[in-house]
Amino acid sequence: MKSNNYFKKGKRPDESQSETTIIMLPSDANPKGNVFGGTILKHVDLIANLVANRHATHANTVTASIDKMTFLKPVYIGNALILSARLNYAKRSSMEVEVTVHAEDLDNSKRVLTGTAFVTVVALDDAGKPTEIPPLNLDNDNDKRRFREGESRMITRLKDAGKVNYRICTRNSGV
Amino acid sequence: MKSNNYFKKGKRPDESQSETTIIMLPSDANPKGNVFGGTILKHVDLIANLVANRHATHANTVTASIDKMTFLKPVYIGNALILSARLNYAKRSSMEVEVTVHAEDLDNSKRVLTGTAFVTVVALDDAGKPTEIPPLNLDNDNDKRRFREGESRMITRLKDAGKVNYRICTRNSGV
Amino acid sequence: MKSNNYFKKGKRPDESQSETTIIMLPSDANPKGNVFGGTILKHVDLIANLVANRHATHANTVTASIDKMTFLKPVYIGNALILSARLNYAKRSSMEVEVTVHAEDLDNSKRVLTGTAFVTVVALDDAGKPTEIPPLNLDNDNDKRRFREGESRMITRLKDAGKVNYRICTRNSGV
Amino acid sequence: MKSNNYFKKGKRPDESQSETTIIMLPSDANPKGNVFGGTILKHVDLIANLVANRHATHANTVTASIDKMTFLKPVYIGNALILSARLNYAKRSSMEVEVTVHAEDLDNSKRVLTGTAFVTVVALDDAGKPTEIPPLNLDNDNDKRRFREGESRMITRLKDAGKVNYRICTRNSGV
Amino acid sequence: MKSNNYFKKGKRPDESQSETTIIMLPSDANPKGNVFGGTILKHVDLIANLVANRHATHANTVTASIDKMTFLKPVYIGNALILSARLNYAKRSSMEVEVTVHAEDLDNSKRVLTGTAFVTVVALDDAGKPTEIPPLNLDNDNDKRRFREGESRMITRLKDAGKVNYRICTRNSGV
Amino acid sequence: MKSNNYFKKGKRPDESQSETTIIMLPSDANPKGNVFGGTILKHVDLIANLVANRHATHANTVTASIDKMTFLKPVYIGNALILSARLNYAKRSSMEVEVTVHAEDLDNSKRVLTGTAFVTVVALDDAGKPTEIPPLNLDNDNDKRRFREGESRMITRLKDAGKVNYRICTRNSGV
Repeated sequence: MKSNNYFKKGKRPDESQSETTIIMLPSDANPKGNVFGGTILKHVDLIANLVANRHATHANTVTASIDKMTFLKPVYIGNALILSARLNYAKRSSMEVEVTVHAEDLDNSKRVLTGTAFVTVVALDDAGKPTEIPPLNLDNDNDKRRFREGESRMITRLKDAGKVNYRICTRNSGV
Repeated sequence: MKSNNYFKKGKRPDESQSETTIIMLPSDANPKGNVFGGTILKHVDLIANLVANRHATHANTVTASIDKMTFLKPVYIGNALILSARLNYAKRSSMEVEVTVHAEDLDNSKRVLTGTAFVTVVALDDAGKPTEIPPLNLDNDNDKRRFREGESRMITRLKDAGKVNYRICTRNSGV
Repeated sequence: MKSNNYFKKGKRPDESQSETTIIMLPSDANPKGNVFGGTILKHVDLIANLVANRHATHANTVTASIDKMTFLKPVYIGNALILSARLNYAKRSSMEVEVTVHAEDLDNSKRVLTGTAFVTVVALDDAGKPTEIPPLNLDNDNDKRRFREGESRMITRLKDAGKVNYRICTRNSGV
Repeated sequence: MKSNNYFKKGKRPDESQSETTIIMLPSDANPKGNVFGGTILKHVDLIANLVANRHATHANTVTASIDKMTFLKPVYIGNALILSARLNYAKRSSMEVEVTVHAEDLDNSKRVLTGTAFVTVVALDDAGKPTEIPPLNLDNDNDKRRFREGESRMITRLKDAGKVNYRICTRNSGV
Repeated sequence: MKSNNYFKKGKRPDESQSETTIIMLPSDANPKGNVFGGTILKHVDLIANLVANRHATHANTVTASIDKMTFLKPVYIGNALILSARLNYAKRSSMEVEVTVHAEDLDNSKRVLTGTAFVTVVALDDAGKPTEIPPLNLDNDNDKRRFREGESRMITRLKDAGKVNYRICTRNSGV
Repeated sequence: MKSNNYFKKGKRPDESQSETTIIMLPSDANPKGNVFGGTILKHVDLIANLVANRHATHANTVTASIDKMTFLKPVYIGNALILSARLNYAKRSSMEVEVTVHAEDLDNSKRVLTGTAFVTVVALDDAGKPTEIPPLNLDNDNDKRRFREGESRMITRLKDAGKVNYRICTRNSGV
């Protein structure tokens, strides 16, 4: 059982942020050498859940949704795919993780932005029900801005899903 | 080189539609048994590109974007993941593929809707440039409605990306 | 525990039939680009077990045998492998699944028959012992013919294995 | 280009025989822990082609057929799968490889026979056409018996496929 | 529970030795076709643990260390990687496995030595604690020499790790 | 062809350093849940080559050797494996990459050191011959110390391999 302290303490976004770098192999691409969008999305989802696991100190999380993702540039076999993920927003059992994806051509060190994804992740208890997670400690303006923007996107998501009463209390989060 | 006939002839959506069924294994899931959203997205993208390849009679396609996807129900190890994909819209080099995902519990035959995805796919020529594809032949009301809705989403996507002049000519598509 | 109704009700072959389509990647082929027969057999077996799981409403099945399979045409990287599987025969704990395999060249839409496989699958209970499955409901001549042919092959298999007394009762199956 | 010597010299079966041992992981099995027949067939085909590659001194071979294979005992996650493959027969461009499969329980050293497979493999030239391979040198009674039995099965296969004139000349093979 | 006999009986090195052969696929190599050292190390570790499992009659073993390994020659896609592993030394819960790696070019039957690895493996009980394994029966001079050399390397490893009192009793091992 | 500038310019170690984080899945571990040392070594080698590719601005590198690696703590399914890699030494065509591996238990945020590896990587030209790489720019004491220690290990490796004349000129490296 989790102690009271677990929920009081909270964590900063930089305590859970993660970076990963993966070399793209032939099985990640179509026969013409273009890496599948699905390969990229698989890694986006894995790192988003890793960040959520780290914040929740809890390994059972599920992806609730991924916002529209645009693939800005093609990625090729042999490129390094670099994913950087950070928590924008956390409330009750839900988290929004922002994942930035770059591709690096190892033959000339050129690095391009492939895309940005917003992944909503929910923490589950052992019975598979949503479970409360620690609050997000926001101690600088950038983190506060990201939290407000994440919260605004979360409200839109809930409205789209018809599940929200428009009054999400944000007081405990320090925003 | 492609004959003139290739572009005139066109294809109906049912000529390229695809279904696939995959049993979820432990490597597709987190240690608690919940299938990763990323596993599902990988298969969504693969089948969307398959449908696009079939319509374009052309194996080099890339995913340009995937609209927001919500995971409505958890999927577990041992479930069959059933993906069904059909072309809604095709114009110049772009296609919108709609992918419906169900999960089936093989221990009791229960099948639930996991989610629906709209994937935008672009056909490329050998130099990696967008290349024209056959038109979509629409010979029933359902296909015409799906085309109009797909076109409307495509306009929104282009507007969001700041690339469109709001006047997409739809006359050649038979809508 | 399964209700009495489970065994009385039965299912038609079309209730469990499955189709799957998989794009062949470099790891599925030898360095010259020819897809391994073993890659195809792996997918044949997976879909045969999926059909058996669906009929048995039961996820623990094992493959007892696969009849001789001839690979009629080579399959290449980038081809779509299309597998279609349907139950021919079901009795006590055994099922015969027929799997038809085609390969489609996505660059020109040509589809060729790769081969046909007959897979014998057995349903197991939690202790790993064969367990009874629902009967196969046969409501058209085609399904009845397939059942009779499947039964004839099953008798041959059992004779070959030296396990049969030549009197397989078929009355309950409606043939 | 291959020298004349290549075809005259021939090789004994023990020059190409191969053994491989693979630990079965969760992804090789259904959720109840039973290894898929398809996993076993994939490895059977890989080692049969390895033996054929070794005899032909030539890496492009394709599987033409696999005879009926019966799975005699279940294989479980954590078992070592031990495959042993040896050439029985080689003539013109065709080879018959016999693959014996055992499973070993690493917790108690028990090893059981899982099954035996006969795989027919064809060597291809760079244009994808069947290409002649070295003869099989038979210098003991066991190898000669295996060759005759393999030849007899090969004739049956060709008859079944309706492709043979019943007079396969075996004189050059030393049988 | 293991019987007394288990520890008395012992096993010879040839009772646990293993060989495995794997064809290198595109996913095992960088985009220029050079097989990753890491692919080779993965297979070295797998077969070392297999040998240890076989000697210990016990499936839970972990790799404690791998000595410096030099890759003497490049390995390419399509090569067969041949690993041969044999126990040199076993005492209490620790084993030293020697793994020899060759690569074979299947287009010309050339086989080259890729490298040799010494892997230290420890057997664990159900609680994850080191557990005693059977002694190694040494009945020829070669096995005795390998044991002494393995023991000497093991003492160096322990000294390097600062864990040893320099008096390893070897009397029970028959050396 | 590479310009003269390529060799003059050099790069600092922090320009090529990399971090990656991977969640350990069931296929990375034995059936008792202990992650294979070979899984860890595969990732160590991948990231070492990534760092070497980044420094060399060149995607064809091969691993020449990996120094002895000790696995200090077990790693389990569900743990995050965190690898951090940095160039210590670069001269002519050879590089030494130091890889530090940690494992993080996502259920309680505990992070332990799994081990440290020194990987020697060589850059190859298109003909597969060693090719000169940019020098390593050392602008702080820590990088200079790491370079000297790396050079000392490199001399030992070459002595062990019997290939060195003991006079490695280090003047151009700024040490």
